[in-house]
Amino acid sequence: MIRSPASSADGLIRATIERYQATFNSGDRDGWLALFTDDGELEDPAGSPPRRGRDDLAAFWDHIHEGKPDDAERTVRMVQGPLVCGLEAAWAFELRIPHGERIGVVEIIDLAVFTNDGLIRRLRAFWSEASIRVEILRSPGPGSTSRTSTVGEESVESSSQQQ
Amino acid sequence: MIRSPASSADGLIRATIERYQATFNSGDRDGWLALFTDDGELEDPAGSPPRRGRDDLAAFWDHIHEGKPDDAERTVRMVQGPLVCGLEAAWAFELRIPHGERIGVVEIIDLAVFTNDGLIRRLRAFWSEASIRVEILRSPGPGSTSRTSTVGEESVESSSQQQ
Repeated sequence: MIRSPASSADGLIRATIERYQATFNSGDRDGWLALFTDDGELEDPAGSPPRRGRDDLAAFWDHIHEGKPDDAERTVRMVQGPLVCGLEAAWAFELRIPHGERIGVVEIIDLAVFTNDGLIRRLRAFWSEASIRVEILRSPGPGSTSRTSTVGEESVESSSQQQ
Repeated sequence: MIRSPASSADGLIRATIERYQATFNSGDRDGWLALFTDDGELEDPAGSPPRRGRDDLAAFWDHIHEGKPDDAERTVRMVQGPLVCGLEAAWAFELRIPHGERIGVVEIIDLAVFTNDGLIRRLRAFWSEASIRVEILRSPGPGSTSRTSTVGEESVESSSQQQ
């Protein structure tokens, strides 16, 4: 079998990715910024001009969080990965943005290059408007909720039913 | 909202990715090879020396298919995406390799660069041994099957149960 290149930084990279999502979920701006190198780059979405360095990254964080009173409820949820190859990794996740009974769900795949210390040297986020769907929360009975995908890609639930 | 760069090749790229998986699933070697440019590159896994050009790509196809009598049952299944940004795209999928009552499942994220005609100029596949899990098929009753994730990452089913 062909093997992917081993990396002693594998565990550090996995820890950084886990923390990258945890700091986003908890609104920990400084913790999130500390995961990048001093000249770290963020290209979000892929193909757009990259932000470089902590000041630019901080401005990006503030931009996507400004005027969003429900920030505490914005969460990311891992869908697949992380898949670590050497000092690179890719992972698929969903950004979930609640708004009343609706949840905007953005499907995103991140690709990042790390240092040997597990810091993010460059991160590119793949998503587009075509990767956004809306789910509706319903409460059919006590203690239970169901959700329905109404726009865009099929939901994870319907995917798993294809087995 | 920040928008990803539009591309007139968006539809062509999506069609190529769909065909890339369909030709793999049907064992259509020539159809799969035709999706690359003449000097197309494949880096699988990411970080390994790339194969370049149709001869090298054909040798790669033959290598991963040789001595596998159950090829007809090897399938890939999209998990998330494709997420198209300009002439690039990323998508998460599973390669499912049946072996008796077990299925080896390899979690993979592909990242590719395309031409304006929707041909693959370069494709990088992110996976590692850590992204392989084994599922066991069971037949608890007529017309039904269940599966259990026994190794590695949690299954899509268990992920969706976290909602």
